Amino acid sequence: MDSHSGSSVRLKVFNLNCWAIPYMSKQRQVRIQYLGDFLNQKNFDLALLQEVWSERDFESLRQKLLPNYTWAHYFRSGFIGSGLCVFSKHPIQEIFQHTFSLNGYPYKIHHGDWFCGKAVGMLVLEICGILVNVYVTHLHAEYNREHDYYLAHRVAQAWELAQFIHHTSRKADVILLCGDLNSHPGDIGYRLIREWIGLEDSYLETQDFQGCEEGSTMVPNNCFVNPHEMEHFPRGIRIDYILFKAVSGFRITCDTFATTTGSGPDDTSGRSIPLSDHEALMATLSIRPASFEQSHNAARDAETQASLMGVLHEAWTEMGLGLAAARQWVYSTGHLFSLGLLLLFLGVGSMLFEDIPWVAEAFFMILGAIVLLGSGGLYLTSLHESKALYEAQAEIELAMEMAKEIQPEAVEVSSTSSLLRTSIQSESK
Amino acid sequence: MDSHSGSSVRLKVFNLNCWAIPYMSKQRQVRIQYLGDFLNQKNFDLALLQEVWSERDFESLRQKLLPNYTWAHYFRSGFIGSGLCVFSKHPIQEIFQHTFSLNGYPYKIHHGDWFCGKAVGMLVLEICGILVNVYVTHLHAEYNREHDYYLAHRVAQAWELAQFIHHTSRKADVILLCGDLNSHPGDIGYRLIREWIGLEDSYLETQDFQGCEEGSTMVPNNCFVNPHEMEHFPRGIRIDYILFKAVSGFRITCDTFATTTGSGPDDTSGRSIPLSDHEALMATLSIRPASFEQSHNAARDAETQASLMGVLHEAWTEMGLGLAAARQWVYSTGHLFSLGLLLLFLGVGSMLFEDIPWVAEAFFMILGAIVLLGSGGLYLTSLHESKALYEAQAEIELAMEMAKEIQPEAVEVSSTSSLLRTSIQSESK
Repeated sequence: MDSHSGSSVRLKVFNLNCWAIPYMSKQRQVRIQYLGDFLNQKNFDLALLQEVWSERDFESLRQKLLPNYTWAHYFRSGFIGSGLCVFSKHPIQEIFQHTFSLNGYPYKIHHGDWFCGKAVGMLVLEICGILVNVYVTHLHAEYNREHDYYLAHRVAQAWELAQFIHHTSRKADVILLCGDLNSHPGDIGYRLIREWIGLEDSYLETQDFQGCEEGSTMVPNNCFVNPHEMEHFPRGIRIDYILFKAVSGFRITCDTFATTTGSGPDDTSGRSIPLSDHEALMATLSIRPASFEQSHNAARDAETQASLMGVLHEAWTEMGLGLAAARQWVYSTGHLFSLGLLLLFLGVGSMLFEDIPWVAEAFFMILGAIVLLGSGGLYLTSLHESKALYEAQAEIELAMEMAKEIQPEAVEVSSTSSLLRTSIQSESK
Repeated sequence: MDSHSGSSVRLKVFNLNCWAIPYMSKQRQVRIQYLGDFLNQKNFDLALLQEVWSERDFESLRQKLLPNYTWAHYFRSGFIGSGLCVFSKHPIQEIFQHTFSLNGYPYKIHHGDWFCGKAVGMLVLEICGILVNVYVTHLHAEYNREHDYYLAHRVAQAWELAQFIHHTSRKADVILLCGDLNSHPGDIGYRLIREWIGLEDSYLETQDFQGCEEGSTMVPNNCFVNPHEMEHFPRGIRIDYILFKAVSGFRITCDTFATTTGSGPDDTSGRSIPLSDHEALMATLSIRPASFEQSHNAARDAETQASLMGVLHEAWTEMGLGLAAARQWVYSTGHLFSLGLLLLFLGVGSMLFEDIPWVAEAFFMILGAIVLLGSGGLYLTSLHESKALYEAQAEIELAMEMAKEIQPEAVEVSSTSSLLRTSIQSESK
């Protein structure tokens, strides 16, 4: 509940990746019910959820939460939906969403991300006269940290997310970004988002933390977590976040920050089923009016600027590697497509010769059709991937150029990038 | 060239749908060369192009225009690209793009829109201290005006475009939107964009117009235009626009506005090939500082507000019709998918009986596979369509709720919408 004590506004925020995949996630319906009870009991201002894949689950939550959270929205996108939804005690004034250009591969059916339409959902709230832009998101999963096939996609998503927030929050007093970034605190995705927008991390900012060691949001002692995946992380991993920024005239502090700890969030209830395979995050934020000196952070210091340049350059490089791989696929699948055409022609052409059995003709035609369809699909996928990565790279390049103009001492990094850019451009011609 | 005469800034803007489809558009390369010469000769501040489908064409233009237009960007998206690009005399400070959620159907290969990744491209420029947000776009084509199969998609795109501009231009002094909206001035798409953002139309605002009758941008006397398509429009149609708005502290006027007239833009050169099948638009805009009274348009009058409510409601209804059709497709293709499964099982099952010839078994299996693949693809397409239309509708509903709160006398329209919404919501459960 927000209490406008003195001149400060308190905001209680809840975030959870719900792991609610119909037919696949364990004890889904019990957990959704449990989550509804918990949210009603704790009375947050905002609850932001990810991986609510079934609209029925959202609808059942909506019905249950209606008395306490009057406003709700499910973000629909892709084939399945974005999985993102929000429940708010405060009137939602505007909603908008941006679906990420890149989101895995359609042929990776077992991973499924491509079908989900991963996105960033945006809400505009006005709380006690303060304009709050809230963003909820879920970036591409990391299935194999050693050989992260999707790194370029996740970095491109992180950049799109950062750009979307950067451009849509210009009038906001306060920015909140909650969600599952599928990036550890040291990873480029997390750093890119934080540095480009200038966001603070609730876990790092609070003086009062209660929860998993190192703020982890996936821990081995959660019974839904596959222990094998946590082999290298005995203390768990931190990939879910509540990030914030006061844009102008305001200052935010994170008074308390808590996570669930692998068991049920409220052990006194006697129910010990965790809410999800992820831990829930709960932050109490205080928003206060601030003097110009306190709130003004436009003039970045040289160190921050250099750090931003480094992060931009790292993201640019990661996308470049992805782009090179995508172009290789465009090339290979293009050749495979020609092979499919050849097989089809062989099949059709062999019909002119009476001594070739029709089984052989049919074989060539069917094989040709399969190769054509398969390589055609792969060709389009890689083509789309290369366009999206190239676009993201171009946006980052421009950002680096602009950052360079602001801070001449960062020339070293950016001149390297210019060289790289020239080589990419000549390659693309 | 912008001349900062007194305290006003002049901006010369060029817009053209280039109709540059490799292997398909007539005299493409000659026209691209001709366009380059023309842009160099006329020296605009900004040239915004659509349907530049080949990046080679963009690259050749970029090389040619480099001396006069130092800054350029091609927006890459989808499989082919967005076709959108921009050339600017002024430094481009930021770029961003938003790909539309809906853009036709993959199985309409002959229409091709689905493969293009239609989008809105955004640039941020600072011209003489004025922050200008420029948007370039190209909405879904209208192939049959009587039976417009894509109306819901185009309206959804118009809404996404309007929302994108609305949310990303909060800090801009001036907004420019140029492009091919594939909507006549009376159509809902055009009205929705103009009313939601509060944009002015250069053609309607100027006192000095030279060009096609009624400002048409596709005319029958252009040799690249199919006369059959203009049967009902002997004076041509107006579907390309230069729209603008001064957000705060500034006032814009359109001093001159011109279109090419079906022949070459400059007949004195002796070359009479039109630049495209569309006509080019050329506007000279003057931006002046304005007093608060002149520039402040936040307090919409009751009439404007009622008109906005009407437009929102019309768009909502159009999307509702599209949504109903999409849901019907989800239902039908779901059944067809089951049929495919049945055929496949029949094929596999018949292998147990020795007296069934293997040709029959193969027939069932191949037919089953084809039906499965086809209906599966259609099912996913319709599912995606229904999600996107539902999301757009939800955003519009919220916009109507908010508009209703501002203006109680508009209750009549919005209460109807609430009724409709309730029916849609109960249907979706």
